[in-house]
This record gives sequence, C-alpha cells and structure tokens, in this order.
Amino acid sequence: MNLKDYQQARLPVIENRLQADLSALIPAGNQELHLMLAYHMGWVGVTGAPKASGKRLRPLLVLMVNEACSGNWQAALPAASAVSLLHNFSLIHDDIEDNSELRRGRPTVWRIWGLPLALNAGDLMFSFPYASLLNLPQSGHTNDTVLAALAILQDTIQQLVHGQHLDMRFETRQDVALDDYWQMIEGKTAALIACCCQLGALLAGEGAARQVQWAQFGRSLGLAFQVVDDWLGIWGDPAVTGKDTFSDLLSRKKTIPILYGIAQNQQFAQHWHKGFAQDNLPQLAHLLEQEGAQSYTFAQADDLTKQALALLDDLVQPGHPMHALLTELAATLTRRSA
Amino acid sequence: MNLKDYQQARLPVIENRLQADLSALIPAGNQELHLMLAYHMGWVGVTGAPKASGKRLRPLLVLMVNEACSGNWQAALPAASAVSLLHNFSLIHDDIEDNSELRRGRPTVWRIWGLPLALNAGDLMFSFPYASLLNLPQSGHTNDTVLAALAILQDTIQQLVHGQHLDMRFETRQDVALDDYWQMIEGKTAALIACCCQLGALLAGEGAARQVQWAQFGRSLGLAFQVVDDWLGIWGDPAVTGKDTFSDLLSRKKTIPILYGIAQNQQFAQHWHKGFAQDNLPQLAHLLEQEGAQSYTFAQADDLTKQALALLDDLVQPGHPMHALLTELAATLTRRSA
Repeated sequence: MNLKDYQQARLPVIENRLQADLSALIPAGNQELHLMLAYHMGWVGVTGAPKASGKRLRPLLVLMVNEACSGNWQAALPAASAVSLLHNFSLIHDDIEDNSELRRGRPTVWRIWGLPLALNAGDLMFSFPYASLLNLPQSGHTNDTVLAALAILQDTIQQLVHGQHLDMRFETRQDVALDDYWQMIEGKTAALIACCCQLGALLAGEGAARQVQWAQFGRSLGLAFQVVDDWLGIWGDPAVTGKDTFSDLLSRKKTIPILYGIAQNQQFAQHWHKGFAQDNLPQLAHLLEQEGAQSYTFAQADDLTKQALALLDDLVQPGHPMHALLTELAATLTRRSA
Repeated sequence: MNLKDYQQARLPVIENRLQADLSALIPAGNQELHLMLAYHMGWVGVTGAPKASGKRLRPLLVLMVNEACSGNWQAALPAASAVSLLHNFSLIHDDIEDNSELRRGRPTVWRIWGLPLALNAGDLMFSFPYASLLNLPQSGHTNDTVLAALAILQDTIQQLVHGQHLDMRFETRQDVALDDYWQMIEGKTAALIACCCQLGALLAGEGAARQVQWAQFGRSLGLAFQVVDDWLGIWGDPAVTGKDTFSDLLSRKKTIPILYGIAQNQQFAQHWHKGFAQDNLPQLAHLLEQEGAQSYTFAQADDLTKQALALLDDLVQPGHPMHALLTELAATLTRRSA
C-alpha cells in the first residue's frame, strides 16, 4: 500500500467523522452557524471541491501514528477529528488577524459574513476539539486516557496562540533573529503536528516516554512543513496554493527566506526596512532568488525531514508498513506545491 | 453573615486563584500576553481599581451554590475560576464584535493592542476554563466528576456562541419578536449563570436531577440579570456602568425595553426603523420612558427573580445560611447600578 491508497481508504472516513461531529455540535436551529463552518470546511459553497477542504494532513497523521503503534485506528477517530477541527478553527481567526481575503482559493469566512459573525463562529469551532476528545470514552478509552488527551490538547493550544502572537509581533519588529523564527513556528505550526503524533501514540496505549518521542518526530516534521510553507508563501503558484501571489512579502511576514534575505543581501534589507509598494514585489522575490534564499530554505526543510526520519527509525521497525507510509508522507510534505 | 461579609471573605481567595491560574497558563516568556490578560482582568493598568475587575458574580455563585449543597468550597475553586475566565474571555471577543471602546470604564483590549493581537489573546483565555477544570483532580475530585464538569462547560460554550450570534443578527433584523429575545439572552447570559449553579452542585456531589434544578435556578436568575442589564444599557449611569451613554440604543441592540417600545409606541418604532442620529438618543430614551418601558422591564426582572426564589425554596432549607445569602444576591442583581 502506498500513501495515496492509504489516503483513499482513510480520508472518506475522516470526512464523515468531521461532518458528524460538526453537525452534533452546532447549537440546535442555528443554520447560519452550520453553513459558515461547513463552508469553511469545504463542504458547501460555489467551489466546494476537494481542494476547498485542505489536505487533512493532521487527522491522517493521528491515524498513521496510531497504526504504527498497533492501535485501532477507528478508536482514534475522535482525536483525528479534534486536531482537524482545531487546525480549521485557527484558520478562521488567522484570516481575520492577517486580513486575508482568500483561503484555499475561496473568499474567507469573514469576507463573506463579516468580521463579527466570523469571529464568533470561530469561537464555536474552537470548542469542538475539546468536545471531540470528550467523545473518546465512546470509542472504548478510559477516563485517564481522555484526561491525558485533553491535557495534550490544552498545552498545544497554548503553544499555538503563543506562536501566532509572535508571528504578528514580528511583522513590525526589525530585529527578528533566526532563533526567534524557530520559536515562533514551533508554536504556530509544529506544536499541533507534534500533538497529532502524541495523540496517535497515546490512544494506541504507548507510555509517556514513547509519546514524547512521537511528539519530537511530529515537531521536526512540523518545522519542515512550515519552512516549505514559507517557500510557498513567496514562490508558490497562487492557482495551486489558493493564496495571493507573494502573499508573505505583502503581509511583511518574517518567514525564513525573508530573514535570510535581510541577513545576506543589503539591497533586499534596505528595501525591506524602507517599506515597498506592491509593484516592487517581483523585484524583491528576484533578489531573494539571486541570493540563494530558495536553496537555503529547501536545505533547512531537508535537514528537518532527515531528523524526523532518524527519529522514526527508533519508533517503528523499518519493515512495518507504516514506516514506509510515514516516510513517504515526510517526503511529500517537502515537495508539495500547496 | 450577610452577602457583603461573604463577598469579603471569598473574593480575595477567588482573585488569588484567578491570578495563579492565569500565570500558570500563559505561554512561558510571553510577557505581553500576560499583560494583556492581566489588564483585562483589572489587575494592572492606570485605573486598575476593584471596579476594573468586574463584580466576580459568576465565581461567587459557584461557591455559594456549592456551600448551599454542603460542598467544600475550596475544592470548588477550579470551577469558580473556570466560569470567571470564560466570562472574561467572552468580553474580549464581544468588545471586538460590538466595536466597544470602553469596558468597566477603561479602554478595551482591542482598543489598546489592536484587533489582531486582542483576538488572539482572547483565544488564549478561551482555553483557560477547560484548563481550570482539568485541575479539579488536584482538589480531590474523581475523573468522572471532571469529565462531567467539562461536558457542562462545553454545552455552555455552545449556547453562549449561539446567543451571541443571535444578538448580532438581531441588530439588522426588523422582525425580532419577544420569543426570539428570550432565546437569545438564554444563550448569551443565562446559560453561563446556569452553568455556575450546576457546577457548584456537581462538585458538592449532587446527582443529575438536582444539578438540573440548580441550573434552572441559575437560568431564571441569569434571565433577570440580563433584563436589568438591558435597563442599564439605556438608563444606566455611564460613570457607574463604565459603558457609553445610551449604549444599547447606539448599537441598535434588540433589548427588552427597545422591543417593548417598537411594539407599543408607533413614534418610537418609526424612529427606530428609519434610523436615527446620535442627537436623537435622549429623545428616543424619553419616548420609551413615557411609554412605560422602564416599569415593564423591571416587572419582567421581578417575575424572573421570583421564579428563581421559588426554585431556591425547593433546593435549600429556608433556615440554611446560604438560603438567605442567595436570596440577598438575587435581590442585589435586580437593583444594581452596574
């Protein structure tokens, strides 16, 4: 079985579970809130194609790690749902905070329903990951396991908000160093991917030490994922990413190619600090390319992926079918286009 | 002991617990997030007087009900903290949604730190009630009780968001009926006050049926509370409420005196539907007064308070010290000025 087969087998089950959880958690009779969240999840709306749903990477990872630890993946579905709902909640609020008008090629929730209703709908979705984990006893898990899962979720959320705070603060700070960057993306992105792996292991009955190792694997994978995302934020094809062209330059995000450019290329640094118009964006991107920012960014992602794969060898027997699938997933994340 | 003595005994303990919970839950090293939330709680900032903290009605109610059920109130502190954190979270996001610049007489969080950072800080605080309840085992509660408490919290949050959604939607709807109004404030306000009472009873070891009765008591009290709040939203003294003069008329909220005015007074209804300038606000308030909107509003609050007190008689022996205190609290809520 390759990753594509695995996805084809699991994604419809994940999607069913997400739809069932969402429907059960919408306050009775509030059709508009249901519509807003179903639209955001990519289930309804003009171009409600598979792309509009995102890749569902995080719930897949929960199930894959769970199976790698010989768990019963069906019993891990509440956690798969939880991480996907958490990720999707964060996008609703991020799009407000970043003033983003497009998400997965469609208008963002706030762009359609206005900021106040979108903020509030995001709040509703924020509560869903907790609710999903509260369903774990129905899949045969003990109360101790449920409380352990909730503690992992809670810690992850605190890290997420921390990373998001730093990300926004860095936009107006001139002295952001690479150390700051790694701390920021650890919270913003890697914490949740680590959480996916830890929950998958927990629900398969792994002990605390093993869970932490799985979280480390997820953390490296998550850092690599964000570094590639940074590349896509400048050089990604808007038709594929569903975001604006040069979106990260435009929003003055302190991503890794931009921090590299500021440190290595005086001309880029001057432009950056002086401020620039939309017309300058292609020129700025070109300066980064000439300076080698693309290869630097990919080298970072490769290193992190290698770290993740080295950890994986300690966690799963190389002959185990999930070893091959998780390795393929890691490779896919690094050479993705969206 | 009267209510004032009780408050003087419990409020400092509640405040200490809130400060400890908040400090423990702020992501390590993020001083700005700490400052934002401590400011919002009224602990720091230019006029960080007791008023800036709010009345802490909800955590007090948890402890009072818990004691009325012969609970150990110290062991209910995590729940007292949870409801207060939930209420205060909701204010951060409400102030963004309603574009409110003043809260408890001070600039709102978004007014000081800007919308994106304030929204994100609110998200952090939204996670704290869950975290507080996850601390319940340290106060000697069983895992079953913790999960029951989390389920109550989860349900309350879903109702809160529903009520807030309706509140915002009603601003632009012309056909809001009194039934809609009661449904809206049941979610926006009464659900959380019901939650306070239910959690207090749960943590004292009361069974499910008794918990529901306590929730009913809280629900009636909460509806009365909101009706009085509606009165204050038009006729409250801004120096005492900490909000703008005629704030609910200005924001076109469908509060009970306004719905009464629309139904009973053609002149008011015409003004309301046509739209009006800030200069018209005193005249609109005067029309409501002439039509008897104030006495109608108070009569509603009185009825609801009586319903709550009738329920209380079934729940606590009239000779019990907490019976007198809860009765006094109910009376205080109806004749408050802020």
